[in-house]
Amino acid sequence: MAGPQPIDFYFEFASPYGYLASLEIDALAAKYGRAVNWRPFMLGAAFKISNSAPNMTIPMKGGYLYRDVERCAKLMGVALINPEIAPMNSLAAMRAFYWLSETNPAQAVALAKAVYHGHWGEGRDLSPVEAVAEMANSIGVDGAALVVATQDLAVKDRLKKETQKAIDRGAFGSPFFFVDDEAYWGHDRLSHIEHQLQNGGI
Amino acid sequence: MAGPQPIDFYFEFASPYGYLASLEIDALAAKYGRAVNWRPFMLGAAFKISNSAPNMTIPMKGGYLYRDVERCAKLMGVALINPEIAPMNSLAAMRAFYWLSETNPAQAVALAKAVYHGHWGEGRDLSPVEAVAEMANSIGVDGAALVVATQDLAVKDRLKKETQKAIDRGAFGSPFFFVDDEAYWGHDRLSHIEHQLQNGGI
Repeated sequence: MAGPQPIDFYFEFASPYGYLASLEIDALAAKYGRAVNWRPFMLGAAFKISNSAPNMTIPMKGGYLYRDVERCAKLMGVALINPEIAPMNSLAAMRAFYWLSETNPAQAVALAKAVYHGHWGEGRDLSPVEAVAEMANSIGVDGAALVVATQDLAVKDRLKKETQKAIDRGAFGSPFFFVDDEAYWGHDRLSHIEHQLQNGGI
Repeated sequence: MAGPQPIDFYFEFASPYGYLASLEIDALAAKYGRAVNWRPFMLGAAFKISNSAPNMTIPMKGGYLYRDVERCAKLMGVALINPEIAPMNSLAAMRAFYWLSETNPAQAVALAKAVYHGHWGEGRDLSPVEAVAEMANSIGVDGAALVVATQDLAVKDRLKKETQKAIDRGAFGSPFFFVDDEAYWGHDRLSHIEHQLQNGGI
């Protein structure tokens, strides 16, 4: 018999709210016997459809949202850095994630966590594939193989397909969750997700 | 000696999150000895600067957000209706609010609550000034005088000035709050506001 469905967790590495959610979603899911499918996707592709743009580039909203993220992090007791290069380009990190996930999904998640922490916890720019490779080396992944893999057509295609799937399912922001086909957007909806997991719905 | 500063509560009647916040902000503020300045403003003017649009008109986001609002209302135990005419035009209701606020601020807030409930609790379209006048009559305000007042140059100007002030202070969405010069956007930030009121900051 199949157990309860995993939670699909869609995210963009350049998204600080995605980072905050990444620190909490596994424990929340586990509390209710759920697994989590980590699914990076190229948020820029969704922005083209929803006429949006990276938060920090939006007049009025950008400055406010960074202050809001700071407050959210403080309330969680998480140290957050405003990276010098933002929004970074997550293409290499995302390809590396899907390459790793083919053979070792747990290691792919470990890389995602390392990338997220490197960017939002230490302010590092993980746009260059070399920076992602260095990060990979530090968690026991072959960085040189990673650099090669990010140019592999099948890997590139996998990221495109995952991004398209996310968009087809309605993901327009980061983090974005699907819990038994109910969609949730935002780190601040984890409490709603918990309500659904606890009560079977809202 | 001056007491603690009131909370500035900026809102758009066409905003369902503003409606949900309007049901809670007075009690939250009172719990911490604060008053609330209710301040409707023409959100469309802010959207022109932030390159945004009414939620329900945004591809991908519109449908999701209505479902999100439904869930938020359910969790609050509040009945919410999806109005047939949306987004409604709040110009007449906002002018009526500021006209009333000159002589009777409490009655202006009562009208705001009636307009909000009429729209989001009963699905009524409060775009026509006649509908606002009818609503006003039901709470003991002279509807005929209200219709005349909404064409008064000073009243029109007051709404323009309040809207410009909201934008100058950084309000780009509804609800938007200022608590001792800290800005908060969204019904889902009431818990952050409470944290600040309780602890003097975040």
